[in-house]
Amino acid sequence: MLKSTGIQLRRLGVTRPTVVIAEPRARANIRRMAAKARACGVDFRPHFKTHQSAEIGRWFIDEGVTKITGSSLAMAEYFAGHGWNDITLAFLINPAELAALGDLARDLAGRGGSLGLTLDSVAVAGLLAAGDPIPARVWIKIDTGYGRTGVEWNQTAVLAAILAELGPAYAPAGLLSHTGHTYAARGAEQVTALWAEALGRLHAARRAMVEAGADPGLSLSLGDTPSCSLVADLGDLQEIRPGNFVFYDLMQWEIGSCAATDLAAAVVCPVVGVYPERRQLAIHGGAVHLSKESLARADGSRIYGLLGLLEPVGPGESPSPGPVLRQAPVVSLSQEHGIIEIDASEWEALTADLQIGDPVLVWPVHSCLACDLHREFMTLDGRRLQA
Amino acid sequence: MLKSTGIQLRRLGVTRPTVVIAEPRARANIRRMAAKARACGVDFRPHFKTHQSAEIGRWFIDEGVTKITGSSLAMAEYFAGHGWNDITLAFLINPAELAALGDLARDLAGRGGSLGLTLDSVAVAGLLAAGDPIPARVWIKIDTGYGRTGVEWNQTAVLAAILAELGPAYAPAGLLSHTGHTYAARGAEQVTALWAEALGRLHAARRAMVEAGADPGLSLSLGDTPSCSLVADLGDLQEIRPGNFVFYDLMQWEIGSCAATDLAAAVVCPVVGVYPERRQLAIHGGAVHLSKESLARADGSRIYGLLGLLEPVGPGESPSPGPVLRQAPVVSLSQEHGIIEIDASEWEALTADLQIGDPVLVWPVHSCLACDLHREFMTLDGRRLQA
Repeated sequence: MLKSTGIQLRRLGVTRPTVVIAEPRARANIRRMAAKARACGVDFRPHFKTHQSAEIGRWFIDEGVTKITGSSLAMAEYFAGHGWNDITLAFLINPAELAALGDLARDLAGRGGSLGLTLDSVAVAGLLAAGDPIPARVWIKIDTGYGRTGVEWNQTAVLAAILAELGPAYAPAGLLSHTGHTYAARGAEQVTALWAEALGRLHAARRAMVEAGADPGLSLSLGDTPSCSLVADLGDLQEIRPGNFVFYDLMQWEIGSCAATDLAAAVVCPVVGVYPERRQLAIHGGAVHLSKESLARADGSRIYGLLGLLEPVGPGESPSPGPVLRQAPVVSLSQEHGIIEIDASEWEALTADLQIGDPVLVWPVHSCLACDLHREFMTLDGRRLQA
Repeated sequence: MLKSTGIQLRRLGVTRPTVVIAEPRARANIRRMAAKARACGVDFRPHFKTHQSAEIGRWFIDEGVTKITGSSLAMAEYFAGHGWNDITLAFLINPAELAALGDLARDLAGRGGSLGLTLDSVAVAGLLAAGDPIPARVWIKIDTGYGRTGVEWNQTAVLAAILAELGPAYAPAGLLSHTGHTYAARGAEQVTALWAEALGRLHAARRAMVEAGADPGLSLSLGDTPSCSLVADLGDLQEIRPGNFVFYDLMQWEIGSCAATDLAAAVVCPVVGVYPERRQLAIHGGAVHLSKESLARADGSRIYGLLGLLEPVGPGESPSPGPVLRQAPVVSLSQEHGIIEIDASEWEALTADLQIGDPVLVWPVHSCLACDLHREFMTLDGRRLQA
């Protein structure tokens, strides 16, 4: 079965590890999330860190997206250079980059757009207020339970102090939070409970801000891929910023955010060794192609990806992804090598006729990190996309 | 103490996560390994996957190195393009790349050098023998216990079959093995025991090959960084191929391959958040800058790096690395963020006067993977190096 998938993959003409995108699935993922945002009455500002590709950005434009999120100045500059003019940097201001952020903000404002900046401290609010004026929307990052960055949601004195320090010139546009702890949750019930808690905390922070003198129209922005995928009613907030959903990945599949049929980014890797006695394949596809992100198995061991098949197609039809093979995980990764171990009951059927040099399809654990390792993607029908 | 290190790091003028190299340490690491190879009477063919930089390659030339190892066709082509003409690809032949490998081999041979190719199967030996002639040295990969790739050392029938398939046109140059399982060992005694076992197995495989008709002068090539650093007498073989030793890293420090004062590659990361109540710093420095490679701590939690200090210097002196801070580990990484947690007893002293925007020095767990994520390095005295 790997052989027939390999025959299809060979038509892509790639001989080294290459990200392939199932374009119809990615477009359907974008369409579904855009429709959900509309149905829930919230702004959709997708995070572009997952794909980092101007060409894939156009698939979002096709679904009506006009506002995006980025997580580094370089990423924001890249998308600004490709015509996006409403960008929020959902990453705390690095004061060493303030001059460059000011340039970018003026550029976007001059084009009728705007840059959103994020901060969580009195110190940075003070730096901003004391420096050259920057025409930016200011977002205050709130920690609603993830514990990474942000003002803790109930630290009302800190929120008031930031508000005072910002002054009228930088009256905040809103409060922004990332509930990254949903990645440890499993299923809609757990994710929805975390979402409700986070949203409640964000509302409490807004009440404190308004009491301290902020505009009651302060926006609330929340929403990672598990929440935006699994929470039925996104409810009472103004904006969501999911990113990973465009491709999803094995981690999201494990959380329950997506079905296997929503996975849209894989890595094509050539087989370089076949070891029937240990039921293993060696592939050219290592930590520098898939990343070392892993998932735990029941026995405590870790996996770094799963093999997949393509559906059989007739002549002239585009390839499309088929089953994801839980029985064929990537069990170890070094810099350039991956080792795939195939369940004893499947070895014969899967590897029949497989030859060294045949390409296989590997679904990564974390598509954002795997895609970041590649400068170019390819659609399953052979179009190259710059990233 | 982080503040004074930050003041020195600011002089580098970098505002985003950047690899910095302590050039004197890297040069000393190269010099020491080259001297050890000479003292042991073995060829030194360092693996260039760690740095992947033509400019750092010149530091090896300064120590008399003329032969190198690579792990992908792209890497070999890059170094061939920078004047290296004796290159072994210690990665199994991908048959889909045979034409390009032939071109590279002819290029190197035309310049008086040669390309080494690696295989571990009768199938690929057959493809090589049946195809257009390639002027390459052929190495047979032997599995001496790591279990990743290679013919198992005691599979004499397979070795004989490969030899027969290769025929006189591709009479093998030698047997090559990688003892990657030394990475799970700790200390000279454990590493030396694994080395002795692997070397014994490599000799046994050579005896089997010679019995099957191979040239008794078949070379033996072995030697990862832990072995080449810790084994006192590299003894009875022809070639070593360590790579990581040029920079070492926290993993090698934990194995015992190096001292903290040998670490030569770190990542400068700006602080973007300071959280005294949880004794944590947020840095711009995530999985896409450090890699998700981790080390386990005694309590089962994992770390992704350690903060370091620079030595105080006088005016005009070059910065040099100081203590590595076990009490200040990177405890979590997301795509662009890292979180550093500082021991309660050290928080006050370390973070005194520290401001958001100050750069800190992070020692990565695995320097090969961290460096691969960056296209440019900088020496600690401010010179940019292409990678």
